[in-house]
Amino acid sequence: MADLEEPKAPARWHLLDDKLLNACRVWDLRARRYRHPELGHEGEFYYIDSCDWVIVIARTRARELIMVRQFRWGSDALSWEFPGGIIDAGEDPVTAGLRELKEETGYIAESGRLIGHCSPNPAILNNQCHIVFADNVELHADGTDWDEHEEMEIRVVPESEVFDWARDCKIGHALALTGLLYYKMLAG
Amino acid sequence: MADLEEPKAPARWHLLDDKLLNACRVWDLRARRYRHPELGHEGEFYYIDSCDWVIVIARTRARELIMVRQFRWGSDALSWEFPGGIIDAGEDPVTAGLRELKEETGYIAESGRLIGHCSPNPAILNNQCHIVFADNVELHADGTDWDEHEEMEIRVVPESEVFDWARDCKIGHALALTGLLYYKMLAG
Repeated sequence: MADLEEPKAPARWHLLDDKLLNACRVWDLRARRYRHPELGHEGEFYYIDSCDWVIVIARTRARELIMVRQFRWGSDALSWEFPGGIIDAGEDPVTAGLRELKEETGYIAESGRLIGHCSPNPAILNNQCHIVFADNVELHADGTDWDEHEEMEIRVVPESEVFDWARDCKIGHALALTGLLYYKMLAG
Repeated sequence: MADLEEPKAPARWHLLDDKLLNACRVWDLRARRYRHPELGHEGEFYYIDSCDWVIVIARTRARELIMVRQFRWGSDALSWEFPGGIIDAGEDPVTAGLRELKEETGYIAESGRLIGHCSPNPAILNNQCHIVFADNVELHADGTDWDEHEEMEIRVVPESEVFDWARDCKIGHALALTGLLYYKMLAG
């Protein structure tokens, strides 16, 4: 068993090969072959190769947060979340967050700031999700600009009620809940 | 744009077809064909079909949490997380959490309880992750029982320091951070 007095860092495996198995539009299924640097054994591991994502926690002057609900084809169900999406190539995470906020909800902010980032799932995904906080957001007259297939319910929810929703598992998306943890720790 | 006075729930799409593309050992890549119930347009959506997962937040009598660090082949990096893994067919989430805790870290608890659950990613995954809290855990003489390829650093970290790790993005796994939010809200 592990020696708890002098913990030993686990080995970083050596990458031997990395191949595409299926291109899935906005992400790819790939497989990597690795060798353990000391033990010598090898293994093949499947993973999803994806661009980075962003979610944005947008707050009104009345301390309400902008929530969206949409049908999700992975879970085959409706899901309450924060606005967000894929960061375009070369795009700054804050710019991407404010763009997604505007496109999905019609709300705009003068500025935003990064309050955290995470690995959506380091076991099977290679990307990062950035968490942007935008304060004093306001509804813009231009409204939303949804992508093909996007269809959302937009709700402006008092901050304390959003935490009730999380407690009651009404918000299910792990990235939204991760965003809420950063919001609680760092948004002020 | 969306009418904010009378928000309309987005449609639940109708499932037309669901096919296997790649079997990836512990999960499968699949594609579903859907039709929008009112607009009539169709789309094919890729997703990962996976068993449910569990993570366990295990606390000692001194209010330290049991953390593990392991090499993750998705992110190609070492990752600090809570213990956890795949729930076996028919296994109760709490039983699974206490089993993973024992196997991965050598710590045992008399009991555990569910403090939340989440969708790891409803856009591309169809499974749930359950969050188990186990209090007053103790190291068992039997030690760990790692699966093939498992190799972990085990650290017993004061609760306040775990939140510092989260704030500093030293804990990156979104499921661990989601677990920490539930712990903050509900463990007591």
